[in-house]
Amino acid sequence: MRVELLTVGDELLLGDTINGNAAWLGRRLADHGVEVTRSVVVGDETGVIIEAVTAALARADAVITTGGLGPTYDDLTRDALAEAAGVPLVRDPELETRLRERVAAAGREIRDMALRMADVPEGAGLLRNSAGSAPGLRVELPGGVVYALPGVPFEMRTIMDEVVLPELAGPPEVARRTLRTAGVWESVLATRLAEVEAMDGVRLAYLPQPAEVRVRVSATGTDAWDRLADVEKRIRELLGAAVYGVEDETLDRVVHRLLTQRTATVAAAESLTGGLIGAELSAMPGSSSTFAGGVVAYATDLKRRLLDVPGDLLAEHGAVHPDVAAAMAAGVRDRLGATYGVAVTGVAGPEPQDGRPVGTVYIGVAGPGNMRIVTCPKLPVPGAGRETRDVIRRMTVVHALDQLRRALLGLPADAAAEFVRLDREEVG
Amino acid sequence: MRVELLTVGDELLLGDTINGNAAWLGRRLADHGVEVTRSVVVGDETGVIIEAVTAALARADAVITTGGLGPTYDDLTRDALAEAAGVPLVRDPELETRLRERVAAAGREIRDMALRMADVPEGAGLLRNSAGSAPGLRVELPGGVVYALPGVPFEMRTIMDEVVLPELAGPPEVARRTLRTAGVWESVLATRLAEVEAMDGVRLAYLPQPAEVRVRVSATGTDAWDRLADVEKRIRELLGAAVYGVEDETLDRVVHRLLTQRTATVAAAESLTGGLIGAELSAMPGSSSTFAGGVVAYATDLKRRLLDVPGDLLAEHGAVHPDVAAAMAAGVRDRLGATYGVAVTGVAGPEPQDGRPVGTVYIGVAGPGNMRIVTCPKLPVPGAGRETRDVIRRMTVVHALDQLRRALLGLPADAAAEFVRLDREEVG
Repeated sequence: MRVELLTVGDELLLGDTINGNAAWLGRRLADHGVEVTRSVVVGDETGVIIEAVTAALARADAVITTGGLGPTYDDLTRDALAEAAGVPLVRDPELETRLRERVAAAGREIRDMALRMADVPEGAGLLRNSAGSAPGLRVELPGGVVYALPGVPFEMRTIMDEVVLPELAGPPEVARRTLRTAGVWESVLATRLAEVEAMDGVRLAYLPQPAEVRVRVSATGTDAWDRLADVEKRIRELLGAAVYGVEDETLDRVVHRLLTQRTATVAAAESLTGGLIGAELSAMPGSSSTFAGGVVAYATDLKRRLLDVPGDLLAEHGAVHPDVAAAMAAGVRDRLGATYGVAVTGVAGPEPQDGRPVGTVYIGVAGPGNMRIVTCPKLPVPGAGRETRDVIRRMTVVHALDQLRRALLGLPADAAAEFVRLDREEVG
Repeated sequence: MRVELLTVGDELLLGDTINGNAAWLGRRLADHGVEVTRSVVVGDETGVIIEAVTAALARADAVITTGGLGPTYDDLTRDALAEAAGVPLVRDPELETRLRERVAAAGREIRDMALRMADVPEGAGLLRNSAGSAPGLRVELPGGVVYALPGVPFEMRTIMDEVVLPELAGPPEVARRTLRTAGVWESVLATRLAEVEAMDGVRLAYLPQPAEVRVRVSATGTDAWDRLADVEKRIRELLGAAVYGVEDETLDRVVHRLLTQRTATVAAAESLTGGLIGAELSAMPGSSSTFAGGVVAYATDLKRRLLDVPGDLLAEHGAVHPDVAAAMAAGVRDRLGATYGVAVTGVAGPEPQDGRPVGTVYIGVAGPGNMRIVTCPKLPVPGAGRETRDVIRRMTVVHALDQLRRALLGLPADAAAEFVRLDREEVG
């Protein structure tokens, strides 16, 4: 089964919108063993849509389109599909009634243009949309079938999961799993995994983000899932604690789970990250049971006033120093009454601070009877200005959450000595 | 001049990576008056790349490819272009020397595979890459020219701006500008802008994000830029204070600028947003002059201990109440010694809290001699679970920054009464 994606919309060609729908569809279909062989974006033009659908069906068995099903004059997908099928658009009375009711319920009057959403190419199937106004369409063309879905992500995803995937997905012949790693450079991972790369019927893809790399493992063959399990086991042996989760198990989820298992809480003391660590620790539903709160001590003096960092320490070394990270972690843990305190101080740039270069970061993790201080001597970043700041801040968040995870699990602090190294550990 | 984009990479079809390169290229080219007529994604397969490039040049004057220029076995763009041009790949000695030096400087040994990056289709032009190892390629094919750029965003952007755009871009015939609005629903904007929608040679595109809508205005014709100026003036009259910036002038930049002009600082007291407001206020280079810091009082008791919210107020009404927002704003302003305090309390879900439904948010903005309390009675969100939390948190950040902006400018608090309304204002 070969599927192509066709995304319709001028806003995508202009780059006003990033094509998140295509990415989501690709992942969803791959997870169900359906291969996406091409993904095309065209503008809002009937002739171009017809041509693209026809060309896609000459190569693939099915096409999934998104976008162009709305009420405005530039929504042309239904017109294009009717023309491609050589049938007229007919107004579906049931859809019209439902549209009128929906708009009336919101206390508004329906515009004639909006009724276009009740028009359907004659003979097309309707794909139930339990999340919005207009259904998707199933149109049979000579070369194969077209599934036309709305561009609104939430509606598109609902129709896809409830209607289209059950129709399209057969049993998988490719088994895939994504292992999530933190703190280790892509080339270091690749070197450690050389023997896995060499295995027949196994493919690895490295998907780097700041301070994280997702390793996508694919195994093919009739025993794909068994092979995948073997490969995953070997990878975990080779990478050890660098693997923190699988699939959509993000670092904040892992930390939340570990804290919940220990009936423990955490508080965050932040400087250069400005609140991003707290934002991660509060992202999960139910995080109020594990996240107490935080202090963003951006101005140096606030580190003393809000977190009890000794004034003479700040006077002597400035704010970017391993002892300051430790004092912040201890201070926020005490002041907020949490089981753990995690703290960061560092230089996000663009200018050096207190004599430390951009990319210098210190992390403190204070736990019951234990304090760990970790140094990131130089986080590697491209470019300059705001982009650099964003990347350094993001890397700092990942390293801080990963160090909290390692402290919770009693794992060593060092991930890849190049970027993260233990400064010291104090017990008692 | 018609340009098509071709993005190469299995990871894009699988949805492991979102196609941010295509979006950036589309925007960049549009800004320079070059029309992107199609955007295609194909996997790592030589034959498919050749076919896609050939088909694209049958329709367009030039193709820009990204990806497939790296050192690994699945980087096939240069092989495909050589085959399409009917020429061999030849190793460029100067490139080889540079590659060897780069790797040696990093203290590593070069692998044979990496030397592939020095291979060039015979006769191809090299596009200087001042940001990385491998240059881009310019290959002339019978149907037109192919610009092959690496997939690494920073390198791709650098080559594009420094080499490709100067070659491609003629004088613009379309003038475009993006106006940024906050707090007003898309359909309300569209209704207010009905007369502009009706103008000849003018197009509006609405690009909604949580609690924000970017309005992209396009004017065509020989006097496009003059027309655009007139249209922008009219739009600003119709929308008033809802327009907070243009192009990439995000809310945090606007707030930073306004605070800088007033030599003022701000501190943030957060609950449901967990630190996201602080993260925004510290995003700009130089924000240490305007952002003092913040307190994330996630646990209810911390609102009393860290922000001096009266205990009896919390006992009587719970944490989600307009008076609590006001007390948090005043508390963080006092404790951190800032000119302004901005505070939010609310329910991000998935469960109601203190008898308030998901989506209830209160915002307090405390300034010198002035306190404004704003209610978001019910932020509109689709779906459930973590996605809902993310959207409500994001909307809360936008409304809070927008209310801070409005307070700084002495503008009224009400944006669209449906979602944001003034609870009360206290002076003195």
